[in-house]
Amino acid sequence: MARRLPKSKKDQRFSLEEAPRSLIPMGMATLLPNASQRVRHLEQTLFEGFSKWGYREIIPPTFEYFDILSSGLPAEILEKCYKFADWTTGRVLVLRPDVTAQIARIVAMGMAGREVPLRLAYRTTVFRYEPEHAGREREIFQLGVELIGADDASTDAEVLILLVESLKSLGLSAFKLSIGHVRFYQALLARSGMSEKGRKQAELAAAHKDLLKLERILRWEGVTTKQANAILEAPGRYGREEVLQWGRSVAGRDQALAKPIARLTQVYQLLEAAGAKDYLLLDLGEFRGFDYYDGLVFDVFSEKVGCELGGGGRYNHLVGKFGQDCPSTGFGLDVDRLFSALDAQGVSAPPLPGRVLIVNSVRAYGEAFKVSQSLRSQGFSVLQETWPTVSRKLLPQVRMRVRQLSINHAMIVGLPELSKKGQALVVDVKARQGTQSGLPVSFQDLPFVLGR
Amino acid sequence: MARRLPKSKKDQRFSLEEAPRSLIPMGMATLLPNASQRVRHLEQTLFEGFSKWGYREIIPPTFEYFDILSSGLPAEILEKCYKFADWTTGRVLVLRPDVTAQIARIVAMGMAGREVPLRLAYRTTVFRYEPEHAGREREIFQLGVELIGADDASTDAEVLILLVESLKSLGLSAFKLSIGHVRFYQALLARSGMSEKGRKQAELAAAHKDLLKLERILRWEGVTTKQANAILEAPGRYGREEVLQWGRSVAGRDQALAKPIARLTQVYQLLEAAGAKDYLLLDLGEFRGFDYYDGLVFDVFSEKVGCELGGGGRYNHLVGKFGQDCPSTGFGLDVDRLFSALDAQGVSAPPLPGRVLIVNSVRAYGEAFKVSQSLRSQGFSVLQETWPTVSRKLLPQVRMRVRQLSINHAMIVGLPELSKKGQALVVDVKARQGTQSGLPVSFQDLPFVLGR
Repeated sequence: MARRLPKSKKDQRFSLEEAPRSLIPMGMATLLPNASQRVRHLEQTLFEGFSKWGYREIIPPTFEYFDILSSGLPAEILEKCYKFADWTTGRVLVLRPDVTAQIARIVAMGMAGREVPLRLAYRTTVFRYEPEHAGREREIFQLGVELIGADDASTDAEVLILLVESLKSLGLSAFKLSIGHVRFYQALLARSGMSEKGRKQAELAAAHKDLLKLERILRWEGVTTKQANAILEAPGRYGREEVLQWGRSVAGRDQALAKPIARLTQVYQLLEAAGAKDYLLLDLGEFRGFDYYDGLVFDVFSEKVGCELGGGGRYNHLVGKFGQDCPSTGFGLDVDRLFSALDAQGVSAPPLPGRVLIVNSVRAYGEAFKVSQSLRSQGFSVLQETWPTVSRKLLPQVRMRVRQLSINHAMIVGLPELSKKGQALVVDVKARQGTQSGLPVSFQDLPFVLGR
Repeated sequence: MARRLPKSKKDQRFSLEEAPRSLIPMGMATLLPNASQRVRHLEQTLFEGFSKWGYREIIPPTFEYFDILSSGLPAEILEKCYKFADWTTGRVLVLRPDVTAQIARIVAMGMAGREVPLRLAYRTTVFRYEPEHAGREREIFQLGVELIGADDASTDAEVLILLVESLKSLGLSAFKLSIGHVRFYQALLARSGMSEKGRKQAELAAAHKDLLKLERILRWEGVTTKQANAILEAPGRYGREEVLQWGRSVAGRDQALAKPIARLTQVYQLLEAAGAKDYLLLDLGEFRGFDYYDGLVFDVFSEKVGCELGGGGRYNHLVGKFGQDCPSTGFGLDVDRLFSALDAQGVSAPPLPGRVLIVNSVRAYGEAFKVSQSLRSQGFSVLQETWPTVSRKLLPQVRMRVRQLSINHAMIVGLPELSKKGQALVVDVKARQGTQSGLPVSFQDLPFVLGR
């Protein structure tokens, strides 16, 4: 007998989003099979690429001691952490709110070996209290790489080129990397003689491109018009070589300004040599947000997606917060936003394997199992159902199962007159309701008949 | 210039296990690259198999509302949960302590659609307070499948055969499935006229094969000798057909006992037809531990591993705790224990791709990048390092990098006299220290020279 559809199942056919809200923690959706398959495929594609660049995966623990990890966490993350007491030690645990800080902790605490720089990759989730929306924004899927133990233009460039190649490998094309250097703007502000508090406020205003607020801060701090002009102008300076030229002219002989521009120029040239120039946008107001970035930083943007897909940059002093300093850089990508970008560019999910339903009698179980395994080894996804008996009279029921399962092909194994000839009855899925007959096909020919 | 090894890095060359304990939460180790690669490979192998049997992945959220999930959690798990308050709602959250209960919750809350039975697969971690040991026993990697919406011998058999095929696909051979039926023993106890409390205690004692305790309970409860004999004998009845025969003789016409034996017999015959008989061991004392199992249950054991690698069984009433009843079965595997079993059988991790170091000058960056990409597309893992200049004089430094990185092949791209001929200098990694010369090879021939 075919599987019974539990009688009232139809009433339950609402999607998870429609389920009563209070039963599922906010911002913590389940990924159903189509979404999960897409995540797995994306992960596999990116990790194959990472591996070819020498980046190897590490899997960090889901929680950490808060007092240890917090020394590396940016202020805005600290406020959003999921914290709880460990019953056995009384210490406060925190669900991983940031991967880069955690990897810095891991490296500082003993992962450094002979191989420097370390090239690490990860896929994981971060947990943050975020305002309520639809979706999964409290458990955020991220993946990325970290290059730890080197500080020069070529390692800055390596991470950027790997990012470009990774996005291309997914089928994305309409994306841009916005690249800046936090030290340039910080030096501009320092040169102006502002107070430390004023500089911090100005950095934030510039990161948000809030020029009105920025102007107010500069006036309050009494910054001279010439200095103020450069500070106000920088966030609007984005583009290609002309941005570097402007930076050089502002810097003059001031090494604190000239050095970041020189590094940006070197990196830009390497990216150009690697054929990645079309994806770049230099932005002297780029800040990336997190405290721990202290060199070249970048964000990834894509057409029709309103927020960055990810980003990264250099954090030469983060590892030092857990042990000894170790210059590092890396990038992270937000998986959900990658899917938004892929959707916007019409890149569809990879196809599923062809599905086959095999219906067999109890008596013919072994025979049907052999057929199933043979088809599986040839790439089919096979659902095998064992009914008490099979006969041609059951063709309508088989057709019904096929419709219920939205399956491509079905066959009956175990019809006495066919089994002794080594044949199965193939049910023509596309035939109309009235057509009851099936096509006897020998087991060897099945893959061919099913389209392989 | 080659990457500098940070000067005091050598002092930090202790493994994570040797790091000061208090800095990392107990039982929450980081998986380093070799272990992570093994996990990824194992997962990929198993999920390819699951997909061929029609099982599709779902990714459940990491935490749930405790009041919702707890109704499906077994008593012994409830005590080990990581719980904490949600700041935004004041409700208690729980880190996933059990996957099967969580999937039951997800299915009951709306995942049931036209396709019954549902075939789901997962890979995830469960979180439990466990006594302190070395390793990762508070964040346990699990993967498995659930078959939801069908209750017959063929679906019991399907999950068992898939389990056998999955273990074989990993290279395991010396394993056994110990299969029982919780209803048989429960019916034996019920027939004896014991109190409910006594029955529960007896179940536990039988599950632990603690016959002395079992005897004491039976005496206390005043069970007749004839009844007590069967109860005491059952946990020792494991093997093949003879176990079923014994069960039938004990059952007689008592349907409560005869039905579980009949189901076990059907499943046994289907497994035999699928060629899985050699991996089976029937065990009428098998209980599997968790409250929610209520039919056929099983554990997987492997040579030289002291605990079960995983197990599963039928839970026809678990989904009903979150909504409407839905007969189900499934299995779960413990990833760490799978590795123990693979190690015990000498199944080694899959080999890494061949690694190549390319050293190039800044000027030759673009040229070297093309070579790197070409080698990557042919399956090599390429580390590209950009030095200010390159010359044959740097051969000793290149050799040093090769040793530091334990790499197979190295080459220099950008030597003026070779670049114009489209050649790189291949450094013979195995040559002795004294041999300073390299071999000029044209870019096209590189994959061939490197062994592909």
